[in-house]
Amino acid sequence: MRENKALSAWQRDEQTIGCWLSLANSHSAEVMAHTGFDWVCVDLQHGLVDYADMVTMLTAISTTEATPLVRVPWNEPYEIMKALDAGAYGVIVPMVNNRAEAEQAVSACRYPPKGNRSFGPIRGAVYGGKGYATEANDQIACLAMIETAEGVAKADEIMSTPGLNGIYIGPADLALSMGLPAMGDQPQPEHLEMVKSLLEKCKAHGLAAGIHTSSLEFTQKYLALGFNFVTLAGDVGHMAKNAARELAAARGTEGPSRESTGY
Amino acid sequence: MRENKALSAWQRDEQTIGCWLSLANSHSAEVMAHTGFDWVCVDLQHGLVDYADMVTMLTAISTTEATPLVRVPWNEPYEIMKALDAGAYGVIVPMVNNRAEAEQAVSACRYPPKGNRSFGPIRGAVYGGKGYATEANDQIACLAMIETAEGVAKADEIMSTPGLNGIYIGPADLALSMGLPAMGDQPQPEHLEMVKSLLEKCKAHGLAAGIHTSSLEFTQKYLALGFNFVTLAGDVGHMAKNAARELAAARGTEGPSRESTGY
Amino acid sequence: MRENKALSAWQRDEQTIGCWLSLANSHSAEVMAHTGFDWVCVDLQHGLVDYADMVTMLTAISTTEATPLVRVPWNEPYEIMKALDAGAYGVIVPMVNNRAEAEQAVSACRYPPKGNRSFGPIRGAVYGGKGYATEANDQIACLAMIETAEGVAKADEIMSTPGLNGIYIGPADLALSMGLPAMGDQPQPEHLEMVKSLLEKCKAHGLAAGIHTSSLEFTQKYLALGFNFVTLAGDVGHMAKNAARELAAARGTEGPSRESTGY
Amino acid sequence: MRENKALSAWQRDEQTIGCWLSLANSHSAEVMAHTGFDWVCVDLQHGLVDYADMVTMLTAISTTEATPLVRVPWNEPYEIMKALDAGAYGVIVPMVNNRAEAEQAVSACRYPPKGNRSFGPIRGAVYGGKGYATEANDQIACLAMIETAEGVAKADEIMSTPGLNGIYIGPADLALSMGLPAMGDQPQPEHLEMVKSLLEKCKAHGLAAGIHTSSLEFTQKYLALGFNFVTLAGDVGHMAKNAARELAAARGTEGPSRESTGY
Amino acid sequence: MRENKALSAWQRDEQTIGCWLSLANSHSAEVMAHTGFDWVCVDLQHGLVDYADMVTMLTAISTTEATPLVRVPWNEPYEIMKALDAGAYGVIVPMVNNRAEAEQAVSACRYPPKGNRSFGPIRGAVYGGKGYATEANDQIACLAMIETAEGVAKADEIMSTPGLNGIYIGPADLALSMGLPAMGDQPQPEHLEMVKSLLEKCKAHGLAAGIHTSSLEFTQKYLALGFNFVTLAGDVGHMAKNAARELAAARGTEGPSRESTGY
Amino acid sequence: MRENKALSAWQRDEQTIGCWLSLANSHSAEVMAHTGFDWVCVDLQHGLVDYADMVTMLTAISTTEATPLVRVPWNEPYEIMKALDAGAYGVIVPMVNNRAEAEQAVSACRYPPKGNRSFGPIRGAVYGGKGYATEANDQIACLAMIETAEGVAKADEIMSTPGLNGIYIGPADLALSMGLPAMGDQPQPEHLEMVKSLLEKCKAHGLAAGIHTSSLEFTQKYLALGFNFVTLAGDVGHMAKNAARELAAARGTEGPSRESTGY
Repeated sequence: MRENKALSAWQRDEQTIGCWLSLANSHSAEVMAHTGFDWVCVDLQHGLVDYADMVTMLTAISTTEATPLVRVPWNEPYEIMKALDAGAYGVIVPMVNNRAEAEQAVSACRYPPKGNRSFGPIRGAVYGGKGYATEANDQIACLAMIETAEGVAKADEIMSTPGLNGIYIGPADLALSMGLPAMGDQPQPEHLEMVKSLLEKCKAHGLAAGIHTSSLEFTQKYLALGFNFVTLAGDVGHMAKNAARELAAARGTEGPSRESTGY
Repeated sequence: MRENKALSAWQRDEQTIGCWLSLANSHSAEVMAHTGFDWVCVDLQHGLVDYADMVTMLTAISTTEATPLVRVPWNEPYEIMKALDAGAYGVIVPMVNNRAEAEQAVSACRYPPKGNRSFGPIRGAVYGGKGYATEANDQIACLAMIETAEGVAKADEIMSTPGLNGIYIGPADLALSMGLPAMGDQPQPEHLEMVKSLLEKCKAHGLAAGIHTSSLEFTQKYLALGFNFVTLAGDVGHMAKNAARELAAARGTEGPSRESTGY
Repeated sequence: MRENKALSAWQRDEQTIGCWLSLANSHSAEVMAHTGFDWVCVDLQHGLVDYADMVTMLTAISTTEATPLVRVPWNEPYEIMKALDAGAYGVIVPMVNNRAEAEQAVSACRYPPKGNRSFGPIRGAVYGGKGYATEANDQIACLAMIETAEGVAKADEIMSTPGLNGIYIGPADLALSMGLPAMGDQPQPEHLEMVKSLLEKCKAHGLAAGIHTSSLEFTQKYLALGFNFVTLAGDVGHMAKNAARELAAARGTEGPSRESTGY
Repeated sequence: MRENKALSAWQRDEQTIGCWLSLANSHSAEVMAHTGFDWVCVDLQHGLVDYADMVTMLTAISTTEATPLVRVPWNEPYEIMKALDAGAYGVIVPMVNNRAEAEQAVSACRYPPKGNRSFGPIRGAVYGGKGYATEANDQIACLAMIETAEGVAKADEIMSTPGLNGIYIGPADLALSMGLPAMGDQPQPEHLEMVKSLLEKCKAHGLAAGIHTSSLEFTQKYLALGFNFVTLAGDVGHMAKNAARELAAARGTEGPSRESTGY
Repeated sequence: MRENKALSAWQRDEQTIGCWLSLANSHSAEVMAHTGFDWVCVDLQHGLVDYADMVTMLTAISTTEATPLVRVPWNEPYEIMKALDAGAYGVIVPMVNNRAEAEQAVSACRYPPKGNRSFGPIRGAVYGGKGYATEANDQIACLAMIETAEGVAKADEIMSTPGLNGIYIGPADLALSMGLPAMGDQPQPEHLEMVKSLLEKCKAHGLAAGIHTSSLEFTQKYLALGFNFVTLAGDVGHMAKNAARELAAARGTEGPSRESTGY
Repeated sequence: MRENKALSAWQRDEQTIGCWLSLANSHSAEVMAHTGFDWVCVDLQHGLVDYADMVTMLTAISTTEATPLVRVPWNEPYEIMKALDAGAYGVIVPMVNNRAEAEQAVSACRYPPKGNRSFGPIRGAVYGGKGYATEANDQIACLAMIETAEGVAKADEIMSTPGLNGIYIGPADLALSMGLPAMGDQPQPEHLEMVKSLLEKCKAHGLAAGIHTSSLEFTQKYLALGFNFVTLAGDVGHMAKNAARELAAARGTEGPSRESTGY
């Protein structure tokens, strides 16, 4: 079975940079994957992408060495299983609140006896190649998001879930859970402290630590902190920011003050 | 943030008329929205529409002043959140049975601390404009359907749910819950009594009251009763009825006796 | 091979009524085909439909006895061949101006030696059944539109084209060709005279005579004149007219004065 | 209402053969349905098919006499209801573990008072025809998969669920539940014993017994055992196997040793 | 009928800036249109966009004040007509070589007697509003590309075509026609001279002058020369450039040396 | 730029085997490409595939080493250019009748000064990699179909067209052109003689010789004759044949007598 290069890197405590995909389009997925990111993540939660588009996007990513990930829309077993069957090599599961939910996420990623994933890796096995049935439990990354008040409070019990490979932080939801305004890249010092605290716990539990950003600035900041996987913005953001900046420059007007929506 | 004109009207206890969309097509959505309805609702439950089509339909509705609503397929938090992120300004949630389910629906529509909506209004903020992050909790309408036996029995506890904006009645399911045959527009007197009873409670709770119909006749009847939002049939119904009537006339045969399916 | 019932009816000089499909959607196609029209026509010229949608729409029509027709976007051989390969049992070819163009249209509908249609009826043979290869030349209807000034002037040479099965009149384009404003259903007396004149020629040439309308009124008028196939409006028109009329009634406002675009 | 021919055959304890659809494509669905299978099943669980494609596939199947079934992605009421509303005449529900889950599946298939299916059979009633509202509870097949350790242990309580029409065995998941490697067609003797044991119970409960295969060999084996409905592989499998075999023959190389993924 | 603001600006000899759309996606179209460009152009020639996607993209652009343009795949009348019927307010026609071809392009944009456009503005009239039938000939922009050796040689005869509104230069094709390598933004002095020469002729003929670029630098250069409409790169380019630049920065590696393909 | 392995093999007079794709689906394309064919061809002429699906199918093929080809729907320059821009490494052009048509096909495949291909290889350059702009003229295969009476009569003038890489024979159309019935794999001795004659001429002109088949039997026959590229049936055929054969075996009925449609 094809190696999960991103997961291998995280298991060696290395740092990787990825890109977020919110556009339902195989070509933007292919272009982003060709850019050289270590991994690329199709977002089924907030992205405007559904299952059918995800399939063509995962296929597009498969033309490159980038590891294909999917953020599933919810901690729903069949949504996780369908993403994996379609060829995702890892899932990012939103809003995991406690141990039971973390265990449910992991279980959906693992064939029995380690979990309850149903067998039928229709495209996953085409992408993964021979050995998928027996090796997938070790190659597929299960990544839980900690971003709610309950999830933060129960971070340790989540992080100690057997079979979980890593934690991914959603800064905007984390901010809301702290009573801070959602801004995407959050500038508040207390937010940074919370991020650092979660990162430390994550390292202590031997898990890969990941976080979302909408900018180079925050990517650099979080890489400097030691995160293993940082999202350097996404397809829509790269497009919109560059277009707005250059349009303002061409018109000789001031740059745009785009209100972040986190994406 | 753009005002939710339908919600504002309901909050002033005004009456509005809307249209139902069951066809997965952006042009029929655009044409219906241009017809002048106060709001237009994309039906993800019984309509033959899925998420990807909904996105283009919400976009089409955005070319007009009609308020875009979505009936989600189920009281499933992530389905609600995805509809809102895609630009719906309100959701109609089917088969709400009790207070806990009503609270779950409301929670999915509100950012913390009022709810547990996850942040990432990718198209919602494009449509809604600046201020979405802070104002959405007030502008997004959460509408619960009361149409099951349990829901009817627990109407008061549902209607008193904080944050709920209105109630929508599904006449056919309501009929089934009463042991009556499902006919879409229900002619039974006891059904009308039940509708009136729910309407009264709704008014007493200060909520917007809405109801589905498949015809002008029932729309007029329910408007006369005082409903705040009445669905004047939908895309497929308008098309099929007119075509059948005119074909019969052109052939000089009797009019069709179409068996209603509620849509 | 399955009989082309519409063509057979025309060859017996009978009258048929059909419906136009401008929405890219298999369900509206299925609903219209179930309404009982003798034939249903997918419009690739002005309709918002492309090839991929046409395939699912032809499939939907195949669930009924209605004969599936396609108006191709232009008198382009490969567009005609692709429509037939996908299962159309006849094509309406727009803006045929003269004998050479009529011959080109017919040729694209017939296998050698009668024409130059390329062999590969991938879905056509699934729908048509055994014998397609040898019988299709007789079952497939080729219908030329006469609607331009040149086409009108050369109506006789067009109508005498061997292998042509019928003529279809586009009233709006015909009006423009006469210096009249395009209104869809054209009320001008000189337009009616032109229509009658073309109908007579068509009958004289032993061809099926067809015409487009947007209303019951004009359908009845043209049936009374003796046309063999009359289009009783289309999906979008039926939907939009009924919705506008009922919305006005529900509001107690005056009926809409929709500006016709011919569809 | 149109008769459910497959269900009728099972109720007469007859044997039927079906085909699996994993490709999101209306033409492959139509071709498979035209092949003469008694029923054809669209797979929303492991197949690369989503709701929108399912609609066009069910439409394509409706051009034939084959009974249209859908394997829903999970035992999720609204996924079951949406498949039925779109015209499925039966659902195969994966991973049913116990009586409560079986009852939930049945309930989603039945209108009140027998269940909690919501009314709005938008395409189902077009396909099923007049009488759908009152007869659907009797014509729609609800089939539960027994394939997990818990499901096997609780087979009797599942099978005795009122309203359940049959059981479908997923051999690969069943193998995993037994500690055997997932291979699709499972050659292990203990697996065969388990299959026989479930078949016997099924017969004892008067339910239709069905099972999945990836080959003619296993189809013949299970038909010989007395199963009522056996899946003779699927679209992708038929295509891939034939292509690989013929390519090897054309090259004069040895045949392929394709690693089964169960599909 | 809604005013064509871009055309009006050009007729006042003003300067406008637009954006190119090569991704088949309604959301990227909507985001680019919301960025504030004066016009946005859907590219059916080199863009990975086909007709069905174009419809949803034109709809998305219609949510803003940006004027919707389409580059048709070829100087093919029905492709031009279909783009206009779908709501484009102007077409950019590639590779116009001489007067006859220019006249053909113009003719496809104008209803008789000024041209041979067929009547049926199904979405165009929804977007354009009342008066479309009579005013479209004046509001729709027809823009011819001069980019081939023959086109350059016959620039004057092309530019003097009655009804033509403007000229659009494709720098890469123009370079190839001059024996220069295609690079997108062409740095060669002789290329600049050719561009200036065409610009001058264009001004002399009273036509709007437009040109393509892939960068802010060339946009500024051409605006300084006096072009009326300059394309400031496109969706894919903005996205890819920003992502590559920021990824290199995050890794501390050198910037990318992306080989331009003109888009 | 990535090498065109199929073209290189043909230029060494080697033999290759390919597969035909008529289903609009990226997964069947990916599965067929993974089967090990030397090249895979997306059929836009008779296949039920349009441009948008072709893009995802070419992307799917790009996950393997198989060379991606496209049969364009017609000898239409922009259809050829769009296929190449989307990443096809060669085009098969149907129904080339004479030298002028062959030159037109070649011209559409080559950038100036060798042809008139317009520059903008949006996905082609992503797949092909650096150097595309300057090397594509040498790597892109242009293959003309000889299958009409005129084409056969003028085979030598077609084959001597500069820049043409090969000839592809469509046996069914060739049969029709000879007055024989179209059967797909044509068993007639005179047909075989014609095929041999064209093959010889092709070899004499130093071109690659290719031919279509629907079976292993004819693939072996034509490989034995010395063809350079032979199509070993296609997706639909492999699927339908295997399903029909195994269904008949399972039922113990006779094998099917499927009427060939050439695909």
